Amino acid sequence: MQTPWDHRYAQRTQRIGSSAIRELLKYTEKPDIISFAGGLPGPEVFPLKEFGDACQRVLKEKGALALQYGTTEGYQPLREQIARHAGRYGIPITADNILITSGSQQALDLLGKIFINRGDRILVESPSYLGALQAWNAYGAEYVAVPSDKNGMITDALEEALRYGPKFIYVLPNFSNPAGVTLCLERRIKLVEMADRYGVPIIEDDPYGQLRFEGEHLPSIVVLDGQFRGNHEVCYRGNVIYLSTFSKILAPGIRLAWVIAPPEVVRKLVMAKQGADLHTSTFNQVVAHEVSRHGFLDEHIKIIRSTYKERRDTMLAAMDRYFPPEVDWTQPEGGLFLWGTIPEELDSADVLKDAIKRNVAFVPGGPFHPNGGGNNTMRINFSYCTPEKIIEGIKRLGDVLHERIKKPVSV
Amino acid sequence: MQTPWDHRYAQRTQRIGSSAIRELLKYTEKPDIISFAGGLPGPEVFPLKEFGDACQRVLKEKGALALQYGTTEGYQPLREQIARHAGRYGIPITADNILITSGSQQALDLLGKIFINRGDRILVESPSYLGALQAWNAYGAEYVAVPSDKNGMITDALEEALRYGPKFIYVLPNFSNPAGVTLCLERRIKLVEMADRYGVPIIEDDPYGQLRFEGEHLPSIVVLDGQFRGNHEVCYRGNVIYLSTFSKILAPGIRLAWVIAPPEVVRKLVMAKQGADLHTSTFNQVVAHEVSRHGFLDEHIKIIRSTYKERRDTMLAAMDRYFPPEVDWTQPEGGLFLWGTIPEELDSADVLKDAIKRNVAFVPGGPFHPNGGGNNTMRINFSYCTPEKIIEGIKRLGDVLHERIKKPVSV
Repeated sequence: MQTPWDHRYAQRTQRIGSSAIRELLKYTEKPDIISFAGGLPGPEVFPLKEFGDACQRVLKEKGALALQYGTTEGYQPLREQIARHAGRYGIPITADNILITSGSQQALDLLGKIFINRGDRILVESPSYLGALQAWNAYGAEYVAVPSDKNGMITDALEEALRYGPKFIYVLPNFSNPAGVTLCLERRIKLVEMADRYGVPIIEDDPYGQLRFEGEHLPSIVVLDGQFRGNHEVCYRGNVIYLSTFSKILAPGIRLAWVIAPPEVVRKLVMAKQGADLHTSTFNQVVAHEVSRHGFLDEHIKIIRSTYKERRDTMLAAMDRYFPPEVDWTQPEGGLFLWGTIPEELDSADVLKDAIKRNVAFVPGGPFHPNGGGNNTMRINFSYCTPEKIIEGIKRLGDVLHERIKKPVSV
Repeated sequence: MQTPWDHRYAQRTQRIGSSAIRELLKYTEKPDIISFAGGLPGPEVFPLKEFGDACQRVLKEKGALALQYGTTEGYQPLREQIARHAGRYGIPITADNILITSGSQQALDLLGKIFINRGDRILVESPSYLGALQAWNAYGAEYVAVPSDKNGMITDALEEALRYGPKFIYVLPNFSNPAGVTLCLERRIKLVEMADRYGVPIIEDDPYGQLRFEGEHLPSIVVLDGQFRGNHEVCYRGNVIYLSTFSKILAPGIRLAWVIAPPEVVRKLVMAKQGADLHTSTFNQVVAHEVSRHGFLDEHIKIIRSTYKERRDTMLAAMDRYFPPEVDWTQPEGGLFLWGTIPEELDSADVLKDAIKRNVAFVPGGPFHPNGGGNNTMRINFSYCTPEKIIEGIKRLGDVLHERIKKPVSV
């Protein structure tokens, strides 16, 4: 049946596609599948008791505030808490540098809304985070892709890409989604310098920075940018917008994240957010503030790290044991993902079809490459499943890969 | 200090203005002001105990689900619950007709994203809801305004407006924001027929429909549209998209609302929402589902109605007593707002400046008129303040109005 809505969609609607990952998440809801597909935290690390206690205290002590409308900028005590936390990591900011968003996805959307004109080029790593590409496609973005290796974006290829005049650079420096790789210090410094030389600003997306299992913490791009410009103001006004989130250190189901930006940019984002959803859930903000007081999250993150480290180690050992020698994979020092590479003549989307028949899932790497390629790559999550499931799932995936690699290539 | 962000804003950013209402909400945070400005529920009607109990049950029984990522469409049991509830009001739908959004403001934004090309005309009442105008300005909407009176949009003026070829019609039929007026049945039927004749679809925004204090419930536009086209399918596929929210019947701080639309439109909205914020807070959805089970909200709404009715009555009586005879106001049968009109030579923005000095606030009516005019009108909220505060606030506002009306007009 036709409705008058059918022929009334805006032009941009054609550029808004469904995300392959989100569609795949539907498979993870089947109880019998072992899913390495989503970017889901392990539910075992959700602090249910502390979260519940915080809910009770909040409703008892400030229920009328927590259930009421709030300001678009975000709950002021939470903004101040985040500013103090950032200060400890060398980012000199105040609450005026912070906007609370409904998950980092909203931050990406609002940044697209205020910065991207149709046809604007955005400089990204390849592979890069699919959610950013999806948000910005709606605004008509095009992409200049710089390849990455096991040390992150290959900054030697940066200068050529910067000559295309990108509007900004988008980078995930720590345990990136999808590849699980970390940008090394030398390249971070080069990135900051090159961005300054060409006058092109940077969006640093850092959802996993605190989930390092081993090796040394590397300074954020926003910190290096502040050092580079000798910026010792208490209110950051540099070239880098920094994004992070409570999704991986507390829980994703509360949709709570933040943007750190120069105050002028925060003001523009606030105006865009007013029209987009008025403000982020007051209740979730007040509860997150309550649960993170007195250093609880600092302690809690240690549990997350050790849980995920065990899962990563289990997965790496199982891959060594069950994967064919033709398959290669990264060794992430933190985060949620590792990245597999299969022989070039194979397509990981075909492998996924076989895998789903065996009740195991991952995400094919192709869609993470904004300008094509990478069809022989796969994103594999290690944070969601228990070690027992990881071993069983990798065994099944190993069987699928052995068969595919033996098989003659389908024409 | 300049940053490279300064000259990189997208063209649309110029069309994204800060909302006068949101800026004014800052005044309501001062403890000594009596605010009739916001559209805030009275905090006394928040069901703190039931909400807290629901939080505890949810975390105990399904914490891992409630704190995890969820699907973009929304929590399936909540969608089904909303579908059943709509069925009771004569809207024959299934969960496939429903998208859960992060407040109704997000529904307005997503509808703009999928439907509005720059320069598209939207047919609205004048005055109309400022949040819709703000969301759609970002997409370059222009407006064809149809005036309204105490029975809502004047449908005799509809045909002329429809000849401008609007993309859709936007209407708040019940106790509208800002004017507090209700579209009468005869005009509802005419609206549905005219929209069908011209092939122009309708967005029906109904945040307050259940908050009727007196008089008879009128069928929704979406119900009348279904009857008009003899649509007895169980899955609605007609001309009307219907919006409602938990903000006024449970609490706005959880940012939870829904869209009812033909399934094809829901699918497009889902794709847009994936890029906008992935999904609405799982925790808030599961808690709202838990708290609304077993008919709690039906009972709770009775408390809200009687509380707001008392406040409306108190305000009307105080206005009778304290306002000058030159001032006129509406007598809403429900909702949160009434609408004042002062002599044409006065500007209610000037009145507001005086009022703030006396620690009382309202919203000037001008900005609600998409094509100008209405500078002698004012939106006055009666749901937020207690009866005692209402009497004191109206007394102060009466003093301000008496002075302004006596004064010679400033040139």
